[in-house]
Amino acid sequence: MQSDEQEIRQLVATWMAASKTGDVETVLSLMAEDVVFLQPGQPPMRKVDFAAAAQAQSGQEAPRIEGTSEIQEIQVLGEWAFMWTKLTVTVTPPGGSPSITRAGHTLSILMKEKGMWLLARDANLLSPVSKPET
Amino acid sequence: MQSDEQEIRQLVATWMAASKTGDVETVLSLMAEDVVFLQPGQPPMRKVDFAAAAQAQSGQEAPRIEGTSEIQEIQVLGEWAFMWTKLTVTVTPPGGSPSITRAGHTLSILMKEKGMWLLARDANLLSPVSKPET
Repeated sequence: MQSDEQEIRQLVATWMAASKTGDVETVLSLMAEDVVFLQPGQPPMRKVDFAAAAQAQSGQEAPRIEGTSEIQEIQVLGEWAFMWTKLTVTVTPPGGSPSITRAGHTLSILMKEKGMWLLARDANLLSPVSKPET
Repeated sequence: MQSDEQEIRQLVATWMAASKTGDVETVLSLMAEDVVFLQPGQPPMRKVDFAAAAQAQSGQEAPRIEGTSEIQEIQVLGEWAFMWTKLTVTVTPPGGSPSITRAGHTLSILMKEKGMWLLARDANLLSPVSKPET
């Protein structure tokens, strides 16, 4: 049996892998019904908004989303947990447009529901990374 | 006796009031020793970094910092809690320079230590607000 911390690490790994393959259904299954995503310059995003944005980007014209997450801290507080990570995400649009890389930190609240850890609140502090001249 | 939620609301009010008057000592007393501040485009800031930055801005040449915080949610999880807020902060430099307003959300983790709530982890998602033409 995995520890809570291992299960949360597995949630992050599953999320990143599902994002990469455009598996929106799996990503949605990893978040609580009342999840809130906070980003700079944007209103709070709920699950229904996340689903609409992800569905709009799926299919043949989907961008390729590749990320690496370095977990800096996980603290389990009973049926809740918090985590912060160092995250880099590269989005490559279809059709040969240049890719965009964003990097920074996330601070997340997770909750255990029916024995499964879910993302409940998420602050995404990523900002664009300027590329070195080539 | 105040509830935990009331105590956390009081912490926010005290923080905002102390920031406004440049009372760095009080602000520092409201955070845990291992506090981590996360912001876009910045490395994680610890308590010692916060103190150095705040001290550098104190005294006669201190900017005026005025903020309003609308708490959106507080959840108390035993000796821990999380909170997200909608925050607007206006910084007015000394000497008549134009003020800068930043607005957005915060997601914070708090911990109760010796009966007192302290800020433990903080994600600051504020971004500059463009002013209407005057």
